[in-house]
Amino acid sequence: MRFKQVYDYVWSQIERGERKAGEKLPSIRQVAAELGVNRLTVFKAYQHLKDDGKVDVKEKSGYFVASVNQPRLDSAFPDPISAPSAVSWKNKLSDIQRIPAVYQFSQAIIDPNLLPNLFLSDYVKQVFDIYPKLMGTYASAQGDEELREHLSRHMVRKHKFQLTASELLITSGAQQAIDLIARTFIRPMDAILVERPTYSAALDVFRAYGARFFAVDITPEGYDLEHVEQVMKQHRPRFFYMNPTFHNPTGYTVPPSQRKQLVELAERYRCLLIEDDAFNDMYYDQPPPPPLFSYDTEGWVVYIRSFCKYVAPGLRICAVMGRKPVIAPLVSAKSLADNGTPLVNQKIFLHYFESDRMQQHLKKLRIALQIRRDIMEEELRRAPGWEWLSLKGGLYLWIKLPDGFPVVAYFEESLRQNVSFIPGTICDPFDAIEDRIRLCFSLVNESQMREGVRRLVDIANRMQLESNLTNR
Amino acid sequence: MRFKQVYDYVWSQIERGERKAGEKLPSIRQVAAELGVNRLTVFKAYQHLKDDGKVDVKEKSGYFVASVNQPRLDSAFPDPISAPSAVSWKNKLSDIQRIPAVYQFSQAIIDPNLLPNLFLSDYVKQVFDIYPKLMGTYASAQGDEELREHLSRHMVRKHKFQLTASELLITSGAQQAIDLIARTFIRPMDAILVERPTYSAALDVFRAYGARFFAVDITPEGYDLEHVEQVMKQHRPRFFYMNPTFHNPTGYTVPPSQRKQLVELAERYRCLLIEDDAFNDMYYDQPPPPPLFSYDTEGWVVYIRSFCKYVAPGLRICAVMGRKPVIAPLVSAKSLADNGTPLVNQKIFLHYFESDRMQQHLKKLRIALQIRRDIMEEELRRAPGWEWLSLKGGLYLWIKLPDGFPVVAYFEESLRQNVSFIPGTICDPFDAIEDRIRLCFSLVNESQMREGVRRLVDIANRMQLESNLTNR
Repeated sequence: MRFKQVYDYVWSQIERGERKAGEKLPSIRQVAAELGVNRLTVFKAYQHLKDDGKVDVKEKSGYFVASVNQPRLDSAFPDPISAPSAVSWKNKLSDIQRIPAVYQFSQAIIDPNLLPNLFLSDYVKQVFDIYPKLMGTYASAQGDEELREHLSRHMVRKHKFQLTASELLITSGAQQAIDLIARTFIRPMDAILVERPTYSAALDVFRAYGARFFAVDITPEGYDLEHVEQVMKQHRPRFFYMNPTFHNPTGYTVPPSQRKQLVELAERYRCLLIEDDAFNDMYYDQPPPPPLFSYDTEGWVVYIRSFCKYVAPGLRICAVMGRKPVIAPLVSAKSLADNGTPLVNQKIFLHYFESDRMQQHLKKLRIALQIRRDIMEEELRRAPGWEWLSLKGGLYLWIKLPDGFPVVAYFEESLRQNVSFIPGTICDPFDAIEDRIRLCFSLVNESQMREGVRRLVDIANRMQLESNLTNR
Repeated sequence: MRFKQVYDYVWSQIERGERKAGEKLPSIRQVAAELGVNRLTVFKAYQHLKDDGKVDVKEKSGYFVASVNQPRLDSAFPDPISAPSAVSWKNKLSDIQRIPAVYQFSQAIIDPNLLPNLFLSDYVKQVFDIYPKLMGTYASAQGDEELREHLSRHMVRKHKFQLTASELLITSGAQQAIDLIARTFIRPMDAILVERPTYSAALDVFRAYGARFFAVDITPEGYDLEHVEQVMKQHRPRFFYMNPTFHNPTGYTVPPSQRKQLVELAERYRCLLIEDDAFNDMYYDQPPPPPLFSYDTEGWVVYIRSFCKYVAPGLRICAVMGRKPVIAPLVSAKSLADNGTPLVNQKIFLHYFESDRMQQHLKKLRIALQIRRDIMEEELRRAPGWEWLSLKGGLYLWIKLPDGFPVVAYFEESLRQNVSFIPGTICDPFDAIEDRIRLCFSLVNESQMREGVRRLVDIANRMQLESNLTNR
């Protein structure tokens, strides 16, 4: 049973007046038992009811029928569930990340204390001395030419890219790059190839533009290339959105041997590869293999390189690289989306990025993050039957839970105890991965890390115990 | 004959090999004579051929067949003209504004020399002292709470809005606000009501999301409200996108008496009013009437207030105000579009906006702009049969040209002489207003203004003379 049916079931009770405004709804556990469905399915239905304003959530006490006195406006815009043609811009990842929690393992953000803040502030002041009219000047839609020149030279030097400044577009973060690519290349019902699991907010964007998903599993060994070829051959996807380096959420890296082959497949089947590379510099062992874009000769790879995560998150600077026929329509889309990323942000970023300080910062940051990762792993060893691969880059651990682990109840209890994480299901294009969670170790400091992970482990141990008792 | 037919005519000649790569195409004048069509139609066809990479333009020498060695990629994404279902993100306004010109009357940008640059730089430095970790911190999708609190209080005080911080979303400029509203509320083939003429880049956004346009003329007296009601009643538009205060491109202001009635019509026909208000503080006579949003009680007005134009263009801060059922989906759309406007920009804006200096700046700026407007009008009086209304606010003059004035040839000759402006046709949802141009007086300084307008007038006089001789 899909969550939509549960949604309709609960909503019809409310609509028929069987459940009144303000009334407490049965718990997720009760509904799951009543309908004989997975609790995660009920959880999703309740979340949608909440998002649609039909149900309220009160912390620690459950779900309630929302007040019937909705503004008249509500009914003017058909509900996304009842009207499938309406555009539903739902961002499940950010919905979870917005839930306040002291021990934040859901947000892939680097602790601001690990960034060279004072140095950055000094830089900003210098930049305003260099460009006194910076605040009064608009940027072009494609981005500041000086920054594009600099970044293209940097990429040529570092990754041996074939690249000029005209093949580079500056966006406000990777999220905007993904959105611009989706709106430019997806038409409703187009096939799109994605990894399974993948970045949840990319799925939400593709879904909103009407994509049909085909997926290929990502494993520590990369993809099943035969499967990739079969999908490309049979379904002709418009593009393959991939995150082959320190992959989100798994941390896996696609091996060099597959990279060249993937570019060849892309050329053969005329399927763009959208290579999202946000963690390239965040390695703990050795630098990752060359990006797929460095193998591209025919223009079938688009390379998204965000600098938001670890350079200067507050500036939100990202670069999209690709050949002219791809970049040109993206520049037009960008000009309609926001007329160009603010020049202030681009100039500050440029001057910081080219400083020596930047490289020193990266070295220190890698060490600091590695220490946090080690602490997380150390504390997690007490968790009952949890498994994960120790990670060579990126900001997360992707944990396999024991079979049948009650992940929804676990998630709810963790939130109640002020700990948040990402349930694996939202990273799945088919909403079915229920035995995984993603824990991000970059935001909280070392002592919070120990306390937060201890809470997680304690809750898990207790639930495991209860579940064993019940099953006996 | 529509430009599409001219496009196909020229393209078929190229495809059949009758015109070879690199070959010069016949001039716009020749093709127009050959096919018996308006030159503007040919101009549009050539522009589309250029945008699609089929034709190259060389400054001062004309149009040429593009090289046939297109990258293979080109053919993989169906051309927007041959495949009507492809998403075409074309921004006609920015295409024109990107053409380099010394005498820039096309861009609605305020001369950076009129902004308090040194003061702004000092402010930035102070802000970084207040928030040393600003560069390392992400904003929420809805926008910084401190800024939203401040802006909502400001709007309550200034315009007597009923408003709280939760009913306000921060976007990166009005352009992004328009894009988010379009993607949230337009489904393909939805009816949308717009003014005629209106802001070209809004039309381009609505078009890309598949809107069907209905239009109501804007005049110095406002709209024909019976016509508005008839369209709302008969076609049930999703929204009415309007710019009722110092309207772009005409400069007209909808009178107070119509504002209340429009809000009532919106409620009656459940049609959102999207009130774009970018020039509210840019008045030269007296402050404009209250925004429509101040009459809203039922939630049918969405208010877009950009501060890009005259406060701090480099920061690109805009606020969208509306009731919860409208703001909530816009926040989700924003989170998928770019995860939120950078915090750096919001904090700098906030501290500048609330300073006393800001009000002083506005006063001075109004005087400086008024002087430029007066110079433009003074120089324009020599133009042959040009008519315009002297403007009480905003940054443009909307000029009526004499009947039959050869506007396309005039536009091309002006560009050749380094003067740019906006042809009225791109401000028209139906591409038919051919006797108007928009001249913006905010960007160039006073001596450039005189020289630029003199060139415009001289070209017009010469062409008028030639045309009289020919017609004799």
